[in-house]
Amino acid sequence: MDPTDSDIVRVFSLNCWGIRYMSKHCQQRYVMIGEMLSIEKHDIVLLQEVWSEKDFLFLKNKLSYTHPHSHYFKSGVIGSGLAVFTKYRIHDTFLYRYSLNGYPYMAHHGDWFGGKAVGMVILTIGGRTAHVYVTHLHAEYCREKDSYLPHRVVQAWELQQFIRHTSAGADLVIVGGDLNMHPQDLGNRLLRSYTALKDSYLETTLYAGCEDGVTLIANNPFINKKELGPFKTGIRIDYILFKGSSKIDIHCDAMSVTKGSVPNHPFPYSDHEALTSTLRLKSHQPDENLHCTDFLRTSQDKHNEARTEVKVGLHCTERMRYTAARTGVMGLALLLLQLAIAAVPWLALGAEQPFPKTSFYLLALLCFAILLTTSLLYVFYTIELKCLQGAEDQMRLCVGHLQERLRGFPLAQPHNVLQCPLP
Amino acid sequence: MDPTDSDIVRVFSLNCWGIRYMSKHCQQRYVMIGEMLSIEKHDIVLLQEVWSEKDFLFLKNKLSYTHPHSHYFKSGVIGSGLAVFTKYRIHDTFLYRYSLNGYPYMAHHGDWFGGKAVGMVILTIGGRTAHVYVTHLHAEYCREKDSYLPHRVVQAWELQQFIRHTSAGADLVIVGGDLNMHPQDLGNRLLRSYTALKDSYLETTLYAGCEDGVTLIANNPFINKKELGPFKTGIRIDYILFKGSSKIDIHCDAMSVTKGSVPNHPFPYSDHEALTSTLRLKSHQPDENLHCTDFLRTSQDKHNEARTEVKVGLHCTERMRYTAARTGVMGLALLLLQLAIAAVPWLALGAEQPFPKTSFYLLALLCFAILLTTSLLYVFYTIELKCLQGAEDQMRLCVGHLQERLRGFPLAQPHNVLQCPLP
Repeated sequence: MDPTDSDIVRVFSLNCWGIRYMSKHCQQRYVMIGEMLSIEKHDIVLLQEVWSEKDFLFLKNKLSYTHPHSHYFKSGVIGSGLAVFTKYRIHDTFLYRYSLNGYPYMAHHGDWFGGKAVGMVILTIGGRTAHVYVTHLHAEYCREKDSYLPHRVVQAWELQQFIRHTSAGADLVIVGGDLNMHPQDLGNRLLRSYTALKDSYLETTLYAGCEDGVTLIANNPFINKKELGPFKTGIRIDYILFKGSSKIDIHCDAMSVTKGSVPNHPFPYSDHEALTSTLRLKSHQPDENLHCTDFLRTSQDKHNEARTEVKVGLHCTERMRYTAARTGVMGLALLLLQLAIAAVPWLALGAEQPFPKTSFYLLALLCFAILLTTSLLYVFYTIELKCLQGAEDQMRLCVGHLQERLRGFPLAQPHNVLQCPLP
Repeated sequence: MDPTDSDIVRVFSLNCWGIRYMSKHCQQRYVMIGEMLSIEKHDIVLLQEVWSEKDFLFLKNKLSYTHPHSHYFKSGVIGSGLAVFTKYRIHDTFLYRYSLNGYPYMAHHGDWFGGKAVGMVILTIGGRTAHVYVTHLHAEYCREKDSYLPHRVVQAWELQQFIRHTSAGADLVIVGGDLNMHPQDLGNRLLRSYTALKDSYLETTLYAGCEDGVTLIANNPFINKKELGPFKTGIRIDYILFKGSSKIDIHCDAMSVTKGSVPNHPFPYSDHEALTSTLRLKSHQPDENLHCTDFLRTSQDKHNEARTEVKVGLHCTERMRYTAARTGVMGLALLLLQLAIAAVPWLALGAEQPFPKTSFYLLALLCFAILLTTSLLYVFYTIELKCLQGAEDQMRLCVGHLQERLRGFPLAQPHNVLQCPLP
């Protein structure tokens, strides 16, 4: 069978770094991105960090002929930053907001305000139902001392859950986005092993791009080389993943990643590199080479590792909540003490003792601020604790189920690895 | 075929009203509930408002023999209050937190702190995969002037999306919970029409309970009759819904609802009545009587109604955000004015003018409090706006898709109503 138009799907993914007035050359870069997309005419375009809806509308207008169907996912204070453009009609969409996503008081990191999420759109490609996901996980600001690691592990856990539970009716699944995780990071292994998604970079026949498929590279003029740390040439944190089903097999024929510059332009599209995968769909060929038992065993190891990470996060959050509570109680005690001091001269009417009003009110203001801040923090840490506990519970349940499957292993559907670990 | 043990599934649902130290006779009622459940031995028990994990653990301990498998869903500041007990092994769980759920400053209503959500557990019942959902939607405090209506409509929308997208691989679907909506309320119609779920009360062959299937009744001693308003005898807001698949047909043989009292006990289990449905599973009989075109048309009407409701919510929120911003700017202006006034005597050193320190600091404290509160409110309303806009976008997309289907209607799979409106 010769490949027809609908048998080849070209997928594009880019973190646009679109913080208006803060990201360098933001407007010009959107013009460049719009022009490139309208020339390249990818079938599916998955964009992240399109923080401003105005920029989305600019692209929507620019791509109205080449990509008539689009969706912008709204979430959080600023937005999720996720956008999809495609030539296929979008039948349905669904958004899942990650339960944990940094801290509101870490405003300079800004992740909390972004409302990180995973968006799904359902398309029909040549009569086949495609579930396409776009996501952006919490950034890693310091690899050595990464206080957001439990958050990112929980996000990866929720991402695999969301994909797994919402893709049962799909003929093919495509996931694109900035996972903010290196290929061998725990969250990435969790995601790939649980969903059986394949990595375009690892599966492709032809590859064009920097060595090791890096997508955050030292050659990009917007990158601060210090931030790359020991990874001198760059890191791979953006991905296009895919999988077929019992009906469809997918193969990645080609993959390309930009190299930090764009011909005839003074700067690249973004601080991240752009990814393009050419996927070829064909009717299913049963694959007999799956080793489900090994698969279950490695899944179990990943599970235990993830639970440990989440437990570390739990202890940290408990400690922080305790500190907030203690500070709050101290603030309250000080406020009450002040009230008592203030009450004394008023009770002893006519004593006319000198009363240090200025320092009194300043101190009261301070106590009040402490009380309010610690109360808000206490509520926030409680929510975080519940989310971490919830994820840990779910992981424990899955480990139990995996152990059960390992004991008496019935090799149910050898062609679908998804059916192996979980129903 | 005679019905075997796995062909009959008894489902129980109860809103436990379990606010420790606030709900009347909370501890004694949990003891009663535990005893009843261990005697009745329902196959699946879906509980709501189990706010304290201690109470969940008490029930878990009490039901360890009759219901060895259980799950408690954690979310929000207090928790989601959702718990599942079952005799079937739980293979997997997933929680979806509703994007909108009241306001944190409406602390006396408390919904925001509860972190309302829908929980899913996956069970295997006699070789069939069952997706079981438990949920609790935002309460309706005033039917005439219901400021939470857009929130509840968005929750119902997200609930139907979650069920629809996560149940593609299920042989049967069971949903139980306190929807806080009357049978003909918009959200309820949205949910039932989109998911094609059937209502136990409407489908049952045998029914035992109060007239009209009411679950919040005037005869219940915990109910304040005034809250029922014009519905003198009670309202029906708790439901057990179900549906089969292309493999399984389900029929509701019997349904019972408690009548506000428990024999040999001085008070009932809760302020809500308890629901029990006896569902019979059998192999699929294709149903040729589906009128998909009519179905699409009524779906479209519901859609438009829901969009209108969400738009009303959008306008309200925009107005409230504007008010918060304006008040905040006023607070800031007053604070700056105060600073300017304070700077004058300090600049004119030695002038020794009398300075009203007390009122000055009190006013500064007030300005500071206004500024902080309005900032928080602004952020909160912005998040609410994004959620409402997101839901409205998704609804618009679905309406477009429905219109397209209505124009050239291909009757694809007559046996599965779910396939009618959306892929």
